[in-house]
Amino acid sequence: MLYEINEKALKLESEGKKIIRLNMGDPDLATPPEIIEAAYASMKAGKTKYSSSYGELNLRQKIGEVHGVKTENVVITPGSKWAIFSTMFLMLRSGGNVIIPTPYWTAYDLIAKSFGAQTKLLRTEMEDGWKIDLDKLESLIDKDTKMIILNNPNNPTSKAMDPKTLDGVVELANEKGVTILSDEVYGAISFVKTKSILDYDKECKHILSNGFSKTFTMTGWRIGYLIANKMLIDQITKLNQITINNVPVFIQDAALKGLELHKQIASKIKAKYQQRAQLASTKLSVAGFKFTKPDAPFYVFPKLDGLDSVKYTLNLLDKGVAVAPGTAFGDYPEHFRISLTAPDDQIEVGLDKICEAAKQ
Amino acid sequence: MLYEINEKALKLESEGKKIIRLNMGDPDLATPPEIIEAAYASMKAGKTKYSSSYGELNLRQKIGEVHGVKTENVVITPGSKWAIFSTMFLMLRSGGNVIIPTPYWTAYDLIAKSFGAQTKLLRTEMEDGWKIDLDKLESLIDKDTKMIILNNPNNPTSKAMDPKTLDGVVELANEKGVTILSDEVYGAISFVKTKSILDYDKECKHILSNGFSKTFTMTGWRIGYLIANKMLIDQITKLNQITINNVPVFIQDAALKGLELHKQIASKIKAKYQQRAQLASTKLSVAGFKFTKPDAPFYVFPKLDGLDSVKYTLNLLDKGVAVAPGTAFGDYPEHFRISLTAPDDQIEVGLDKICEAAKQ
Repeated sequence: MLYEINEKALKLESEGKKIIRLNMGDPDLATPPEIIEAAYASMKAGKTKYSSSYGELNLRQKIGEVHGVKTENVVITPGSKWAIFSTMFLMLRSGGNVIIPTPYWTAYDLIAKSFGAQTKLLRTEMEDGWKIDLDKLESLIDKDTKMIILNNPNNPTSKAMDPKTLDGVVELANEKGVTILSDEVYGAISFVKTKSILDYDKECKHILSNGFSKTFTMTGWRIGYLIANKMLIDQITKLNQITINNVPVFIQDAALKGLELHKQIASKIKAKYQQRAQLASTKLSVAGFKFTKPDAPFYVFPKLDGLDSVKYTLNLLDKGVAVAPGTAFGDYPEHFRISLTAPDDQIEVGLDKICEAAKQ
Repeated sequence: MLYEINEKALKLESEGKKIIRLNMGDPDLATPPEIIEAAYASMKAGKTKYSSSYGELNLRQKIGEVHGVKTENVVITPGSKWAIFSTMFLMLRSGGNVIIPTPYWTAYDLIAKSFGAQTKLLRTEMEDGWKIDLDKLESLIDKDTKMIILNNPNNPTSKAMDPKTLDGVVELANEKGVTILSDEVYGAISFVKTKSILDYDKECKHILSNGFSKTFTMTGWRIGYLIANKMLIDQITKLNQITINNVPVFIQDAALKGLELHKQIASKIKAKYQQRAQLASTKLSVAGFKFTKPDAPFYVFPKLDGLDSVKYTLNLLDKGVAVAPGTAFGDYPEHFRISLTAPDDQIEVGLDKICEAAKQ
């Protein structure tokens, strides 16, 4: 439903209709000019050829430094989505199940289903602050469980896991011999301090996926990475060789420039999104929506008792505002997701229409 | 073995050793500056965001025009390799077999094996001019055969299929209800006129994969496309949504510029590679190698009776020349593949070392 809404919004736009797009985690902010210039310089320097399916050595080294792991534990991927797909494909294609807390990013479930892996959904509730119940998690783990996916901070709730719960999940996973795949793509721009899976484990027994999209406003560039044990990195590289081959080197050079300018870029982005989150919180509260305060850009996942979110979403799209229905993130028909990723004035109009439509 | 040799060559280079790289189909020529400028302009215009998993409408339309098919029959992919992987994955993941003529591009076989599909190899011989034997093909087709892969012109032999054989393959495939996946990535820069699978079938019952890498010297940009029936295009788009998402729009804009300048770019590339093929043919003939005359850039696939191509290749790599052993393309231990994709002076030295090493 997430992608269908997006293709529908794109189609309406191509027909000339004005759509305020609050449906995708795609920042309205431009990619910083330093990053664009780095890409251009790299292209002109001839970095337009096939290259290693591991990714460029200098970028892998830099990422290793940032996270305190070895270069051999890093592989560059065309977006963190590919990092997640390839990991799940390699670990689950021959059977087994994966536990996914909900609400979840749609792609996890669709990825698992694309090669017939079994998913076990672990429901969390807004009323509990979206906390994972460790007893419930333990009861879901069976002998075929190979992976637990964490998305921290979470899409769609923008909730960061509290350290104690994360401690518990890691402990349980270690005890049961289950691998955690921690998607931390919103981690570097979180409003609150979050713990990374690597804080538990510099030996890379567990897996971190991350990307440049959110931190550096580089969504459309398609570049991310995976940090894992060397064996999995080698396997993903082999899969890269027969699928995507390599991320364009000039894009890797652009990402490297982003990492070099990390502090100044990330703090700007954070400040901007904190303002927006504040605005959304105020407007939504007044209109009677319930939600948890965002710990990270870009999302709010409000609830309205009795809402039919698919109907509501389609109705809103007719009125020129695209959001994503709660059902795109699991069994949450009374919720919907707003991405605060449009220009400020559009967000304001969009929020007003959202609030107005809820009255009907 | 193809990718292992490449990673090995890259490693030797990173250690400071000078390697003449005749092992990959990666042109030494630079991407035309008009294409680079188009990418840069597009980035600066903000085309750095998520976009449709089908690809950009204007590029799909243009490709549709070039091939005489509808826009809805075109999907943009990160390289033709992804077009091939995703097609094979979708058509073969739930069982069935695929027939692949040999010598073949390594990736076809590795792709099939990555999700457990069965491959049936159809051997062709240099002595027969690499022609497919239609009786042999017919005998390989069984009730589980879902696909025949053609690579026309072929990598590694640079042989274009003669129209009569292609007629026969298409007729047989139609009769038996088997889909042809025709990889025509060398088609637009072929030295001889070749027939496309689309010449038989504007309704897209069969499938064409193609890319911008070879025609426009854009290997490292990772952009290609697939032409197929609408149902498959929709399925691939859904797979794109959970894997690569989209090819960066600024790369699609660059490819569109390439298509606009197609004639002038392709004719330059052809002329350059015809010279090189001529040089290689002369040197290799004198040294006693047997091979078929290249119909297309970039490869020659010579044979020397009694050669152990893996040993020969590793030995050559020690001497600073990377080529690919015949065993990387099927059961061809007496062959090896030379890519004429280095600067002219390097090719000359490389060819001399190749000829010299064969004497030992």
